[in-house]
Amino acid sequence: MTTAPFNEFTSGTPTDELASRARVAATAFAAWSAQPPRARARALVAAAAALDAAADELIVIAARETGLTEVRLRGELKRTTVQLRLFADVIADGSYLDVRLDEADPEFALGPRPDLRRTLVPLGPVLNFAASNFPFAFSVAGGDTASALAAGSSVIVKAHWGHPELSQRIGRIVSDALEGAGAPQGTLQVIFGQEQGVAMLRDEHIAASTFTGSIHAGRLLADIAAARPAPIPFYGELGSVNPQFVTRAKLGRDLHSVVEGYVASVSSSAGQFCTKPGFLFVSDASVMIEPVHEAAQRVGEHRMLNPRIAQGYLARRETVLATDGVSVIAPGTVRFDDDANAWVTPTLVSVSVAILESSGRRLLDESFGPLSVVVEYRDESTLADLVRRLFPGNLTGGVHALDDEATPELVALIDQLHRSSGRVLFNGWPTGVAVTSAMQHGGPWPATTNDAGTSVGTAAIGRFLRGVSYQNMPQHLLPESLRDDNPWHVPRRTAPAGESTSWGNLG
Amino acid sequence: MTTAPFNEFTSGTPTDELASRARVAATAFAAWSAQPPRARARALVAAAAALDAAADELIVIAARETGLTEVRLRGELKRTTVQLRLFADVIADGSYLDVRLDEADPEFALGPRPDLRRTLVPLGPVLNFAASNFPFAFSVAGGDTASALAAGSSVIVKAHWGHPELSQRIGRIVSDALEGAGAPQGTLQVIFGQEQGVAMLRDEHIAASTFTGSIHAGRLLADIAAARPAPIPFYGELGSVNPQFVTRAKLGRDLHSVVEGYVASVSSSAGQFCTKPGFLFVSDASVMIEPVHEAAQRVGEHRMLNPRIAQGYLARRETVLATDGVSVIAPGTVRFDDDANAWVTPTLVSVSVAILESSGRRLLDESFGPLSVVVEYRDESTLADLVRRLFPGNLTGGVHALDDEATPELVALIDQLHRSSGRVLFNGWPTGVAVTSAMQHGGPWPATTNDAGTSVGTAAIGRFLRGVSYQNMPQHLLPESLRDDNPWHVPRRTAPAGESTSWGNLG
Repeated sequence: MTTAPFNEFTSGTPTDELASRARVAATAFAAWSAQPPRARARALVAAAAALDAAADELIVIAARETGLTEVRLRGELKRTTVQLRLFADVIADGSYLDVRLDEADPEFALGPRPDLRRTLVPLGPVLNFAASNFPFAFSVAGGDTASALAAGSSVIVKAHWGHPELSQRIGRIVSDALEGAGAPQGTLQVIFGQEQGVAMLRDEHIAASTFTGSIHAGRLLADIAAARPAPIPFYGELGSVNPQFVTRAKLGRDLHSVVEGYVASVSSSAGQFCTKPGFLFVSDASVMIEPVHEAAQRVGEHRMLNPRIAQGYLARRETVLATDGVSVIAPGTVRFDDDANAWVTPTLVSVSVAILESSGRRLLDESFGPLSVVVEYRDESTLADLVRRLFPGNLTGGVHALDDEATPELVALIDQLHRSSGRVLFNGWPTGVAVTSAMQHGGPWPATTNDAGTSVGTAAIGRFLRGVSYQNMPQHLLPESLRDDNPWHVPRRTAPAGESTSWGNLG
Repeated sequence: MTTAPFNEFTSGTPTDELASRARVAATAFAAWSAQPPRARARALVAAAAALDAAADELIVIAARETGLTEVRLRGELKRTTVQLRLFADVIADGSYLDVRLDEADPEFALGPRPDLRRTLVPLGPVLNFAASNFPFAFSVAGGDTASALAAGSSVIVKAHWGHPELSQRIGRIVSDALEGAGAPQGTLQVIFGQEQGVAMLRDEHIAASTFTGSIHAGRLLADIAAARPAPIPFYGELGSVNPQFVTRAKLGRDLHSVVEGYVASVSSSAGQFCTKPGFLFVSDASVMIEPVHEAAQRVGEHRMLNPRIAQGYLARRETVLATDGVSVIAPGTVRFDDDANAWVTPTLVSVSVAILESSGRRLLDESFGPLSVVVEYRDESTLADLVRRLFPGNLTGGVHALDDEATPELVALIDQLHRSSGRVLFNGWPTGVAVTSAMQHGGPWPATTNDAGTSVGTAAIGRFLRGVSYQNMPQHLLPESLRDDNPWHVPRRTAPAGESTSWGNLG
């Protein structure tokens, strides 16, 4: 079996090798995008099966490279292979093509209308920058790769330096599986190195890019994508602090379940989730102190992903703890082992709204790790405006309220949360993102660089597609999805000739 | 009746007035986007009716300001009001919201799945830069405005300097009509001036922008949009030369109808269309000379839009005529009247493929006006690769062939045209863009800055939307489109609990 060429751990890649890989991706794209959807679907399922079969081997490597627990990693690998299979369903179904057929209409309101048939087609080869904190689900075979392959794009993944052996191994397994199922050589390639990633982002063959990581790095890459001779879409998932709001009534009735859920969500995987709740707004912080402290005490030490992330977290933690007006509920612990890895327990503090506003970015910036801030508010009616001003762009926002609460303040808060975030939760915690058709993982800047997209859920495929219309094209020259006989059984919307409209009937 | 504030022909607008208008747009957005879709639809229909009622007055102003013919302008105004009504249909129908409902599923493959409901919501206030060449259809009340208003965005139009009185008048008529139908004050505003447009593009309240014009200006604005503290999507429709390819068989059988259609498409509205066919590839240029010359002779003088566009056209024409290897088929005429307006007839030249390739941008750049190049090719099998190399980004591309032709060369050419353009025509001419659900007007760079969008047709609404998911939200706190009782009757896709998948059944 032929395997895709990819970096076997050389320390760097010369420019001409990168250019050669980009050309391979372009050649692979032409063939891969021309395959029938069900052939691509079968290849995705084959990749999922190959990863499942290699689970034991992969979990060992991942645990060593990331410090994440086996339970977490097995769940994440399962999610990754389910994700590949979900996208197989999406392309076999075909509604993602948004096919529209306008029948020729000699009597159209604007004069004779031609036969027009529109489908979505893939943009071209996609470059994905992998994440540190999801070695499976946002890395070589993660959601960005699954959705781009499903769209018909070939994919180059710039692996994250935090889990290189795992990235290499997964790249080999998946590219072998894809090619074994009929995908062209080079449908998936993996490259290593920051400079190499930037050089690839500038390559003319790359048609779109994704990224999961920090605001700083994401903005740098977004600017490079926008400054190319031919700009390309860049879908970066950057920073989010996911504010949570507990109503006075909810706090009065369900204090302990709120606290349990909060501390669990903050500390899960050492808080290294983009959906970690960074702020919890309550009407009375004093009642939180004892139960939060007690719940935090019960959280065991968790290793952080790598020393560099640990250093960033410790610096943020110092800044927060040194801010005037911050009260410590649970200080948390930090211990370094012999490999310079940090083992941490959660740090939870409280402030007033006034302190939060006056301290600016010192408190508002994301802390990537198990740190969260309880904020005491005085008046629920101020919360919507506070979200608008302090939390303009987040992946998620949540309210915790009684099931039948419907105060104007709550309605206004939810309305504002939907304007400033991509997912609004009720009595839930934002960590643990379902991979389904209705998921939105992406929100206004700086949650994402382009909030038209989602990086989780089946709608993610839309990021790699563009429309093409065929006008008066004979049947034998149309793509299958647009032919009258519809051999792929694609769902389609037809505008028949002479269709009446509702123009006069909007009463 | 209250009317939206907009510039009454002051020569410039101070910065604080612009900032104030942006705030008005943001306030209007909150109220407009919260209106039920059918209320927005009624307002769009009211705007269309008001424009239709003012047609006689508007046509006179437009003819004076643009030099376009009454027939053309009446057709364009009709198209503009039909467009507004089509978008009323789109929002009353509701499928543009792409609503997805995932029922809660305790047995989901990845563990318990919450109730997730996703809809699209408008991004926020939109800034549209109007075009010179479509005073109605791509200006104050044109497709970008209609689709943004339909999405629920408030709109600020930066009027084109080429038709200021018309822009002002249409702004007043449409904003009065919208507000008369219940839209908030400031739902549509009009501003004037290049600096003012740039300043508005930088305003924090603007959430997306559109543009129709030159590659140079579009790239400048796209770079500004990308460099904002919070980048926003910029949908620019820039340059296109729309190459057309005639097969040897077609030329042999239908020479005269090809020539008639070609010259008519090149010279319509003095060639001032983004879809004007800039190149016609034929297997034998010699047979074209007489009929093209003869057809060109029959085209009457047409005024160009304004002296600045005329100067640009004349410079391009000089460059083309002075290029080695260019043969003149019809030189065309240029006459200036007392108002410094240029009156022109078409200029048609021919070259070999070899000359085209060696002359580079001298011949390949767009000539905005009635100039087109007949290119003689030797071998149909070279055309697909020629498109890939010389015409990588166009709005349209077309083939002219016999109805039953199906050579591998033709199939390869159409395949390449769909990769490098947004609309592929068969035996048709690209000018005259149908406003329908299946239209795609947008293509790879530099045809557009972002080829995920279309600026004509109902899919244009998607440029101003982003996804929001609600997780476990009680019925009374959900937006109407996501409630179980579906009061707006929005088409929705539901993923039921326990749904089986096709994972094992892709054979």
